[in-house]
Amino acid sequence: MDKEQLIRLVVEKIQEKLASNPPCIPASPSYPVSIGISNRHVHLSQAHVEVLFGPGYQLTPVKELQPGQFAAAETLTLVGPKGSLAKVRVLGPARRLTQVEISRTDGFTLGVFPPVRDSGFLQGTPGLVLVGPAGCLKITEGVICAARHIHFHPADAERMGIRDGDRLAVKIQGDRALVFDNVLARVNENYRLEMHIDTDEANAAGVRNGDTGILLLRQEGS
Amino acid sequence: MDKEQLIRLVVEKIQEKLASNPPCIPASPSYPVSIGISNRHVHLSQAHVEVLFGPGYQLTPVKELQPGQFAAAETLTLVGPKGSLAKVRVLGPARRLTQVEISRTDGFTLGVFPPVRDSGFLQGTPGLVLVGPAGCLKITEGVICAARHIHFHPADAERMGIRDGDRLAVKIQGDRALVFDNVLARVNENYRLEMHIDTDEANAAGVRNGDTGILLLRQEGS
Repeated sequence: MDKEQLIRLVVEKIQEKLASNPPCIPASPSYPVSIGISNRHVHLSQAHVEVLFGPGYQLTPVKELQPGQFAAAETLTLVGPKGSLAKVRVLGPARRLTQVEISRTDGFTLGVFPPVRDSGFLQGTPGLVLVGPAGCLKITEGVICAARHIHFHPADAERMGIRDGDRLAVKIQGDRALVFDNVLARVNENYRLEMHIDTDEANAAGVRNGDTGILLLRQEGS
Repeated sequence: MDKEQLIRLVVEKIQEKLASNPPCIPASPSYPVSIGISNRHVHLSQAHVEVLFGPGYQLTPVKELQPGQFAAAETLTLVGPKGSLAKVRVLGPARRLTQVEISRTDGFTLGVFPPVRDSGFLQGTPGLVLVGPAGCLKITEGVICAARHIHFHPADAERMGIRDGDRLAVKIQGDRALVFDNVLARVNENYRLEMHIDTDEANAAGVRNGDTGILLLRQEGS
């Protein structure tokens, strides 16, 4: 066999490998991950809970979302310069900072255009008026589009070789198939493995609550 | 070392390279493509134009969208079992079949849950009530979520090696980076190169009208 033949053979072998091994699904392992769709919601400081629901008021847990985190019975109305959204769910327990998470679609309704942010990074974000049964308040910042992310228990993260802060990719199958890049990994003892996307992202991917994505173990842009 | 071993070694080295090196941006050429965001809209048959706007009525072109296709001055109200949407744009010219294109978000507002379909494939899709200034009508089918697609002039398609009906992938960059799979290629003499996505898809990808995607020349799932 001469060099030319050898080269051709190698190229053929590689083509076989590539054909059986899609370039967008890398050879590295992939893992199914359950998807939870975050509708618009509000996290409140205890001071703001009391302005909106009354002095000494405590949020009422209704449904556990992640260990120690719950959807509360309480809802608010969000009012922006262009419109309002009623019956927006409050999540508990109360946090240090009030944070409002909306979709871009909601932003067009309200007339506010928050950046995509990881939870807790509120500097320079827009504000909004919150209206509750006992009062109202105007926050000057705290409205975000939440960055898509996955909650990992440390045991899952270790098994998959993932560190807190990694940016991952998740493939969604079906007639609106897509690959979400830039998915933030958040690792915490109190987390249960779940990917969180907002309603725009769920609708764009044709995903329903509890559907499964495929976690591709590569960094964004790689 | 025999030839078999040599070949295996070379293949392994290449696989290593591929693993450390963009699995999602193939070596094959990629092309920028401008993105147009389709808000909810209605295509009408001439008979339906006349029911909604009056006998002999002709749609009024306001803005060309693709050669020969225009946004009309006319708007309608869509009414579903759960809600309604006012000022929904009519596109022209009149077509053989009336077709209503909405996002999934709109579907939740209206209470209708249309499938993702290529334009014109209306069998088994839900209906809706359309209300115009001169009358109303109830269609029994014709409501779809439009499948994401790219319009190609034949010259562009040929340059890129694309055929009508191909399913493509388009990468979007930015903080909501993602790769849209399953993007239908539509090739026609009357088309200008442009990708069309709906508002949910645009919001999920953080895209504005006129932003640019990167067309990756691979088939869906490959």
